[in-house]
Amino acid sequence: MAGWGGFFFSLLNYKTEKYVIAENRRIGILFRLYQLAVLGYIIGWVFIVKKGYQEKEEAIQTSVITKLKGVTLTNTSETGPYLWGAEDYVIPPNGEQVFFIVTNYIETPNQRLGFCAESFKIPDGRCQSDGDCLEGESVTAGNGIKTGMCLNSTGTCEIHAWCPVEHSKKPAEPLLSESENFTIYIKNFIRFPKFEFSKSNVLETSDESYLKTCSYDKENHPYCPIFRLGDLVSSTGHAYQDMAAKGGTIGVLIQWICDLDKDSSKCNPQYSFTRLDMNLNNTVTSGYNFRYARYHKDEKGETYRTLYKVYGIRFDIMVNGQAGKFNIIPTIIAIGSGVALIGVGAFACDMILLYMMNTSSYYRERKFEIINFKSAGDASLSHTDIMVTITCED
Amino acid sequence: MAGWGGFFFSLLNYKTEKYVIAENRRIGILFRLYQLAVLGYIIGWVFIVKKGYQEKEEAIQTSVITKLKGVTLTNTSETGPYLWGAEDYVIPPNGEQVFFIVTNYIETPNQRLGFCAESFKIPDGRCQSDGDCLEGESVTAGNGIKTGMCLNSTGTCEIHAWCPVEHSKKPAEPLLSESENFTIYIKNFIRFPKFEFSKSNVLETSDESYLKTCSYDKENHPYCPIFRLGDLVSSTGHAYQDMAAKGGTIGVLIQWICDLDKDSSKCNPQYSFTRLDMNLNNTVTSGYNFRYARYHKDEKGETYRTLYKVYGIRFDIMVNGQAGKFNIIPTIIAIGSGVALIGVGAFACDMILLYMMNTSSYYRERKFEIINFKSAGDASLSHTDIMVTITCED
Amino acid sequence: MAGWGGFFFSLLNYKTEKYVIAENRRIGILFRLYQLAVLGYIIGWVFIVKKGYQEKEEAIQTSVITKLKGVTLTNTSETGPYLWGAEDYVIPPNGEQVFFIVTNYIETPNQRLGFCAESFKIPDGRCQSDGDCLEGESVTAGNGIKTGMCLNSTGTCEIHAWCPVEHSKKPAEPLLSESENFTIYIKNFIRFPKFEFSKSNVLETSDESYLKTCSYDKENHPYCPIFRLGDLVSSTGHAYQDMAAKGGTIGVLIQWICDLDKDSSKCNPQYSFTRLDMNLNNTVTSGYNFRYARYHKDEKGETYRTLYKVYGIRFDIMVNGQAGKFNIIPTIIAIGSGVALIGVGAFACDMILLYMMNTSSYYRERKFEIINFKSAGDASLSHTDIMVTITCED
Repeated sequence: MAGWGGFFFSLLNYKTEKYVIAENRRIGILFRLYQLAVLGYIIGWVFIVKKGYQEKEEAIQTSVITKLKGVTLTNTSETGPYLWGAEDYVIPPNGEQVFFIVTNYIETPNQRLGFCAESFKIPDGRCQSDGDCLEGESVTAGNGIKTGMCLNSTGTCEIHAWCPVEHSKKPAEPLLSESENFTIYIKNFIRFPKFEFSKSNVLETSDESYLKTCSYDKENHPYCPIFRLGDLVSSTGHAYQDMAAKGGTIGVLIQWICDLDKDSSKCNPQYSFTRLDMNLNNTVTSGYNFRYARYHKDEKGETYRTLYKVYGIRFDIMVNGQAGKFNIIPTIIAIGSGVALIGVGAFACDMILLYMMNTSSYYRERKFEIINFKSAGDASLSHTDIMVTITCED
Repeated sequence: MAGWGGFFFSLLNYKTEKYVIAENRRIGILFRLYQLAVLGYIIGWVFIVKKGYQEKEEAIQTSVITKLKGVTLTNTSETGPYLWGAEDYVIPPNGEQVFFIVTNYIETPNQRLGFCAESFKIPDGRCQSDGDCLEGESVTAGNGIKTGMCLNSTGTCEIHAWCPVEHSKKPAEPLLSESENFTIYIKNFIRFPKFEFSKSNVLETSDESYLKTCSYDKENHPYCPIFRLGDLVSSTGHAYQDMAAKGGTIGVLIQWICDLDKDSSKCNPQYSFTRLDMNLNNTVTSGYNFRYARYHKDEKGETYRTLYKVYGIRFDIMVNGQAGKFNIIPTIIAIGSGVALIGVGAFACDMILLYMMNTSSYYRERKFEIINFKSAGDASLSHTDIMVTITCED
Repeated sequence: MAGWGGFFFSLLNYKTEKYVIAENRRIGILFRLYQLAVLGYIIGWVFIVKKGYQEKEEAIQTSVITKLKGVTLTNTSETGPYLWGAEDYVIPPNGEQVFFIVTNYIETPNQRLGFCAESFKIPDGRCQSDGDCLEGESVTAGNGIKTGMCLNSTGTCEIHAWCPVEHSKKPAEPLLSESENFTIYIKNFIRFPKFEFSKSNVLETSDESYLKTCSYDKENHPYCPIFRLGDLVSSTGHAYQDMAAKGGTIGVLIQWICDLDKDSSKCNPQYSFTRLDMNLNNTVTSGYNFRYARYHKDEKGETYRTLYKVYGIRFDIMVNGQAGKFNIIPTIIAIGSGVALIGVGAFACDMILLYMMNTSSYYRERKFEIINFKSAGDASLSHTDIMVTITCED
């Protein structure tokens, strides 16, 4: 029959491999065990543990709003009593995802533009003679521009700067030590665009007062995202007062691991708090601080300012999530690759059977049917024919 | 012949499974249909719909710059006329990705540190007797530190605070109601590092005036990212004035779905606007507001401040994107798993053919060729035995 | 034997495909080459190059802290000498991931609420007659609200605004040209949650002075993340002074490509600097600027302000990373799909062998064993035998 004819003809039939059954218990059992292992791996690990049948999404959309509550009174010798409210100690004040809480500060009031001595703390500011104070050069990591004069009184260059320069040392005790009792409210909305699923970490209640009174508790109030600063910090394993004195960074991680094949109520936020400014060897780094100034003008319209060097705790609220939902493609890839894997095993068993046993040559002859062009009427082949007939006769 | 000899010998030949053709139309057609289904799935779904031949990148790099335009005049009984420009109503003013627009506010001018009555709105501030006002204790969610005195006049504790405390109620009508006509300009640069592809959402034109005059329009001006606040909010299905009164959060999602096998002009941004501060049951949450203060000093150098409680709309501009480009690995994984899938079908058909039909036993005998060692007196096998002995005799 | 009996019986044996060996060198070698190719692809490309045996994580957690150092003195005719420190030129000052450095500015001091002429630069503010200045209407992209009067002196509408309105032009030369010598310190902590691996880009040294003196150098100081602004900008291929004059945006990309099967010391940050505000045709866009105001009160308690329009460089610090670690699932998927691929090749070779060669019909008869029901097997089969002999005889 012609090539194409045969081709179409064959299409209508069911073609299936011809198998050779090797009555060899060892290989047989070995192969079955292997098949079971693969099956177990696919079902147990890929499907049950790793949920390999799910399409995953990690590109989470998220919005975080934060709000702090609490006031504290500081009382320093220089500046007298001062009341700090959220509008002062939260920077920036507008409820962002990354914010800073002032816990300690150095205030330098009434600075005016002028000429004064550089602080002795700045190495580059020190001098023996005017030669060390090159005019017009700025002091490296310093407060101003050198005027070219060396002041013997202080042993530092005279500079053109906001005078007097900041001099006082950081208070050993945090001035806002009571910030430990401030509360932070973290509102988080998430959305998995691929699955069009969205949720918030705040309880949806009609009870107005709930969010005013509750405080977070994994068991009883998982949907009341209000934390006391002190608790939050201590849960990272650090002492609040130490951290407050020199400053630091805390990462608040909100994790949403959601199996969207289950009910949405099973998709809950998990909070974890870690101190970010740590070295690998778990020594704390130098802390966290920055400066800002408040500008004023006097009657004559001259500008003066109050400089604040604030130490405090920076919070990075990080949200990440992963949602999974059944999808045919990953399922098929998982199954397909598993099946292919069985093929690998079969190949291995064949190798053993065909080349690593004393009866191998015998197997080879039965497994492989040689087709050659030279001697057609060859023993093995005629034999097969006979065998076939016989088999059919019973 | 020796194991290895045979191994190398076989290497030079083409080994292919021996097939048994079952002239069984039903199974045959069933299997063909299954093969077509798999083929259809791979080509249609994996390749055409899901573009399974592409390597995907979701780790998009992005930079967003925002700028608002518009001025409005407010006129309150307490403070008289006041002109709001972008430098005032945008917080922070420096064109960030997440920003806040003041639409309503409560102003408390000329606050000075001192002693006054806590607001009656604060539950913890109310008192019957001095006993309710523990000295030095801060008022929970309040404005200051209790002095230990209970003021009968107001029925609240006297506190050490910025006085007078904020008292007035939020205006029912947004004071900056005209902010509806402000325009927001969103400049977005994206980059897919893996494919080194970058693009911007702004038309590249030499016409200076274009961006000054145009406004976004999906059809005609897709590359003019200038939006009127009112339109933007209403497109989320909410009334601007209601939102402006109590505040809220709006997510502006810019999506870049790019098939980099096609021309870059096919890779366009898609804008979508959603209100983020919604509960699942679509009730609006309490709104959005925060406080900030402006500090001043009088002639005597005493500090006083103006406290603002601002309500407004917070915009979270979220950019996500996905780029796909042909890559051999996902292609092969897709094909490979599909092929393996056909194997699964073949296995299933075999099961039917071999164990679930009345002619099964007959098929089995033809499909499986038994090799055993013990002599079961039938011809084919006795022959085998001989062969075996021979084999063993070499 | 019964279906199920046979089924269980067969379970104890090792079933393996019966192969037909086609002594056809060309096909044989072709197939071997194909197998080698697939093997090479899997080992070489998937495993060695693409590390296909690794589970990848791209959802990196990161925290960035920035700090700038340097002071400069500006001297403008209007406002006299003014000293800029980090607390002034960094906006916002609190060491965020996205920040702005003032390099040029227009100062408009002593603005007070009142009535004055709109700037002529604003198209919508120009007028011929009062009719062009609709009362109560705000000037589009302008500074205030029209009073309904057209001022002939300036040819613009009179507006209710902060007066005088900003008028002066942007200085051609950046006023803070020395900002080129400022240094920026970028502290970056990363964490791969899936692998619980975290690292920082700062050298962990006990030497206090190291970070005060060092500056970044790919070879010698890879863990000293301190950059001179000028170098940073020039490494993007742009001139600092040009950029400083009109402003721009620079992306600082920190990349962490980590093979966690290797030692953690092999996982190092890679810095790259790109200018973000570029069009595809590499022309620079309009620059970057925004306005902010400082508010003051005079003796009479009247508010006045100083408006700053600041031009400068905005830095977007983007961190991305990818960590890979050996995992069994991707390994198996890679192998499995490769194996399946070999199947594809075998199928192709079969097609050639069976339908595209002159000896094809002969192969078909040897490869396929026909089973039919009509005649009690013998006929069809004896037929095969005969056929075989015949075929072989030609």
